[in-house]
Amino acid sequence: MKAIAKLNKRIKTANSLLCVGLDTDFDKLPEKFKKSEYPQFEFNKYIIKQTHTQVCAYKPNIAFYEARGETGIKELQMTQDYLLKNHPDVFTICDAKRADIGNTNQGYVSAIFDKLDFDAITLNPYLGREALEPFLQRKDKANIILCKTSNSGSGEFQDLKISKNKLWQIVAKRVAEQWNKNNNCLLVVGATYPKELKEVRRLVGEMPLLVPGIGAQGGDLAKTLKFGLDKNKKGLIINSSRGVIFSTNPNLEAKRLREEINLYRE
Amino acid sequence: MKAIAKLNKRIKTANSLLCVGLDTDFDKLPEKFKKSEYPQFEFNKYIIKQTHTQVCAYKPNIAFYEARGETGIKELQMTQDYLLKNHPDVFTICDAKRADIGNTNQGYVSAIFDKLDFDAITLNPYLGREALEPFLQRKDKANIILCKTSNSGSGEFQDLKISKNKLWQIVAKRVAEQWNKNNNCLLVVGATYPKELKEVRRLVGEMPLLVPGIGAQGGDLAKTLKFGLDKNKKGLIINSSRGVIFSTNPNLEAKRLREEINLYRE
Repeated sequence: MKAIAKLNKRIKTANSLLCVGLDTDFDKLPEKFKKSEYPQFEFNKYIIKQTHTQVCAYKPNIAFYEARGETGIKELQMTQDYLLKNHPDVFTICDAKRADIGNTNQGYVSAIFDKLDFDAITLNPYLGREALEPFLQRKDKANIILCKTSNSGSGEFQDLKISKNKLWQIVAKRVAEQWNKNNNCLLVVGATYPKELKEVRRLVGEMPLLVPGIGAQGGDLAKTLKFGLDKNKKGLIINSSRGVIFSTNPNLEAKRLREEINLYRE
Repeated sequence: MKAIAKLNKRIKTANSLLCVGLDTDFDKLPEKFKKSEYPQFEFNKYIIKQTHTQVCAYKPNIAFYEARGETGIKELQMTQDYLLKNHPDVFTICDAKRADIGNTNQGYVSAIFDKLDFDAITLNPYLGREALEPFLQRKDKANIILCKTSNSGSGEFQDLKISKNKLWQIVAKRVAEQWNKNNNCLLVVGATYPKELKEVRRLVGEMPLLVPGIGAQGGDLAKTLKFGLDKNKKGLIINSSRGVIFSTNPNLEAKRLREEINLYRE
């Protein structure tokens, strides 16, 4: 099944737009996990057991695994193997924000789409479509392009005005109109920028949007849903990382978030 | 020693602006290396033995190592350990083109500056200075920001005009005027864009520039030197990857390139 079809099916069967970010920062792990042979993997397994009924997707940010070198990459692979074996219907996103020139991207395609077997990857648009072709040509996978990122300083270049449009608007339009020939593109828009989210939804129709920035970063859930949902009350992947995985009860926290999101969908 | 001082010292003692890109694509390795226990490391060791007297820097692109999962990361670490032990005065660049939000970049800082112990990393500017602070605050290291990349489609966003300037010009000015408080920034400009290289040199004074794109990508060496050198006949790191490492005689090819570069410096 193609990745976006898998996502839509999972959103329906789990009745969830919630994505849990497996940002498994070793330093923040409870002591009992730190002592185990595979701390990041064991912690992820615990989080997945606690939350899998509540989510449409999991999104590990690869930076937290690379920080531990070859060991971290091994534990990310173990996490993926565990997910694919036990919950093959859950959508998986590698938050890697990659982009290189064409020839070199093939290495990232092999690493993240093939070896780690993620359904989707996040990509940086700065090098242009031509550079990202090795990702865009993969009809079986999904490419989530940074548009308006959630950080407070994202406007430095993203908000620059090119005649009447800001750079993030141009990125949104290009991806929707020219990059999405294989129907395998999505965009990232931070929940911290609700007005921009509304405009991106207007520009891209029913293209799914990955929305980080609720919880620790302070994004507003009500506005995210109001401005971000497509006309079918779908089209959003709403991510929470630290707010779920480092809470005292990840199951309850994920359930609470999923239900709050669904309230706003009604 | 701070990274940029190390670079300048090495340029002087080796009398070289040449950087060899350790883009050690497993599929392209000679059969005898493919059969060894650590193919990428053994090949890199061979290339380093052949070329170290000719170079100011080595620049592995991490994509080629990630493509082999934990094994590749281990062999990249072995390559760095070998370099630091045997040729500690050679400048090392991890071509990773990273950028995430602040909190997460710390993972890449740990991975690439601390664990792998590279002198420098390449970074993508799309998320803005505020996001990249964990890198920029490292006074001991160097940050090489993508400005005008060498690929044929780099203009899609980089050439967009914001009133009188193109996006890559704004990136160059911002980095030179606002990001470089710790004197630890450089820029990437492709040899395939000599006019842009000339303009970047005008904008940034003596800031060193990493220039990929000679050789396989078709960039012109004469124009690169004419337009890219600073007033001290330095300020350039000229990279060749495939053209050196997959040549029949890497030593001769590196020597030839170094000498050709030095001819244009006179």
